[in-house]
Amino acid sequence: MTTTVSQKQILDALSKVNDPELHRSLTDLNMVRKVEVREGAVEITLAITVPNCPFKGQIESDVRAAVRALPGVKEVIVHMGAMTEEERKALMGAPAEGSAAKYNRVQRVVAVMSGKGGVGKSLVTGLLAAALSRKGYGVGILDADITGPSIPMLLGLQGPVEPGPVGLRPLQSRVGVKVMSMNFLLPNEDQPVIWRGPLIGKAITQLWGDVMWGELDYLLVDLPPGTSDAALSTMQSLPVRGIVMVTTPQGLSSMIVRKAVHMAQAVGVPILGVVENMAYFTCSETGKHHLIFGPSHANEVALAAGAPLLAQLPINPDVAALCDGGHVEDVTLAETEGLIDAFIKAAPVQAGKQHG
Amino acid sequence: MTTTVSQKQILDALSKVNDPELHRSLTDLNMVRKVEVREGAVEITLAITVPNCPFKGQIESDVRAAVRALPGVKEVIVHMGAMTEEERKALMGAPAEGSAAKYNRVQRVVAVMSGKGGVGKSLVTGLLAAALSRKGYGVGILDADITGPSIPMLLGLQGPVEPGPVGLRPLQSRVGVKVMSMNFLLPNEDQPVIWRGPLIGKAITQLWGDVMWGELDYLLVDLPPGTSDAALSTMQSLPVRGIVMVTTPQGLSSMIVRKAVHMAQAVGVPILGVVENMAYFTCSETGKHHLIFGPSHANEVALAAGAPLLAQLPINPDVAALCDGGHVEDVTLAETEGLIDAFIKAAPVQAGKQHG
Repeated sequence: MTTTVSQKQILDALSKVNDPELHRSLTDLNMVRKVEVREGAVEITLAITVPNCPFKGQIESDVRAAVRALPGVKEVIVHMGAMTEEERKALMGAPAEGSAAKYNRVQRVVAVMSGKGGVGKSLVTGLLAAALSRKGYGVGILDADITGPSIPMLLGLQGPVEPGPVGLRPLQSRVGVKVMSMNFLLPNEDQPVIWRGPLIGKAITQLWGDVMWGELDYLLVDLPPGTSDAALSTMQSLPVRGIVMVTTPQGLSSMIVRKAVHMAQAVGVPILGVVENMAYFTCSETGKHHLIFGPSHANEVALAAGAPLLAQLPINPDVAALCDGGHVEDVTLAETEGLIDAFIKAAPVQAGKQHG
Repeated sequence: MTTTVSQKQILDALSKVNDPELHRSLTDLNMVRKVEVREGAVEITLAITVPNCPFKGQIESDVRAAVRALPGVKEVIVHMGAMTEEERKALMGAPAEGSAAKYNRVQRVVAVMSGKGGVGKSLVTGLLAAALSRKGYGVGILDADITGPSIPMLLGLQGPVEPGPVGLRPLQSRVGVKVMSMNFLLPNEDQPVIWRGPLIGKAITQLWGDVMWGELDYLLVDLPPGTSDAALSTMQSLPVRGIVMVTTPQGLSSMIVRKAVHMAQAVGVPILGVVENMAYFTCSETGKHHLIFGPSHANEVALAAGAPLLAQLPINPDVAALCDGGHVEDVTLAETEGLIDAFIKAAPVQAGKQHG
């Protein structure tokens, strides 16, 4: 006697397979495009978000396992296609039901990335946010460094955040930047977040979708080091439309930053520009420029990134002191002027939407 | 009619539940201590590795789900106990069948950690390894920074590594340190490792268990920033017997390093000491000490860690140049002498085992 599997049984099984990025089922995401059954052989056609999705293999094997487990299934053939650009955009921007996201209007999400730690991603994020806000743009910062957040201290902000009608209310900096960080949700800032990657990814998507960002011209996402969960979840679950890549003169940094560049290229997010931090130190007594971390590799990184060098920032004890004191917004460096102008040129938002 | 579930069915179900740290099943790990069935109610007693394991909740709910799915089960009661110290040690040291681990004899595994990126963990690891090796100790470095490895460049080492009879052969530095890094396994060093956390954790346990470390006095594990997968897998799957915590003068660093301190305390690994890097910069012309990143917070961090301050290292362009050139082993700083002596005092190995 042959048991036959029904299309409904297969769809039910697929409704339990989640996309590893988006944390929603393949059926819910409209990724299942065709299901055919012929005498125990099941043929499934999927459309995933991007053709070179790093999780292609995992999705395929999850689907295979789920369908193979059904009674009467002898063979599973999976065809992996990709969504159209329109489908992908609609999906990435589509907020989960009941979340704050559907009330949010964010013109441009830009991630600040490096791959390497301690190069000044948060400093660059803070400098950009403050300057853009002063120019009248509506700006938010999503601190995606869940285990080592720097943004709250640089901006002098502390939780707790308050719940609003449809999500959490971000805190507001002195200059008017809306800020959300995992640290605002902890009972005290020293508490470690000892989480595995999948939870890190989920936290980031919640800081995006469950927060009342409202109407923003720019949302800057401050990424942690590495090319693992935080970077992946941000680039694949948020509608990121550009990356600012931060590096330092050390050869070591530029090697690791090139890894981040290649990751951005693999997931198809354009790099808007490169910022070199800690480029030199000017002695307060002699005025001499000391290349403390060696000669610049910024042009090499920019070349690899196929993007302009937006700025080279000095090492400056006054900047370090302002940052430690929560006053990154008060940093005035001649070098940041050019950075802001170059950034706006690289990441323009729709005219007429400026606030203030 | 009542279906009754058998003890064997329950054990079979539990043999499919993996410990999230150790990637082996609960039955295989001898964590299932008692199973009782009374009219559809199943009572299970588990012994997990440590009572405050961060994955306690996950293990419990995985067990509940697996057993609840069996026919005839109406209720699942899970008691969570902990292993004895002996059981835990036996388990943590126990190599997987067929791996290199059972031929390895490592006296002391020490992790170099920070929480914060770019503070100089790899520099400290390299300085310690070279000095210990010169003193005649057998030393290895396991580079646990899978997505942003610094160790290969600092030591001037490049892959590929060669397979040996029972595992991969580590590369050897000029001074004689055995080194293993994910970068040695990549076709080129610029290639990003775009992996989710569980794969990161698995890679680290493989760099420990599938590498022919042989006989070592010290294995130093260079951790990436953060308190997520890499730190967790290292502390829970490797027999780590101490942590060196690296910080910088920035208030920002000390806040994030305190998170790492609290993580170490939560998982029960002792902190051997604190190293402050980038403490000051000496102008080559005037000899003046510039506190570029502000006044020291090292004593606060040491106090929070309950551990001695092992050393304060300067910012030094010569050090940066040696590191970028692959010559971290040739760095000579007056400050490192004290570091090595303090380290050996804090992390002694058995006398008479020294090599060379």
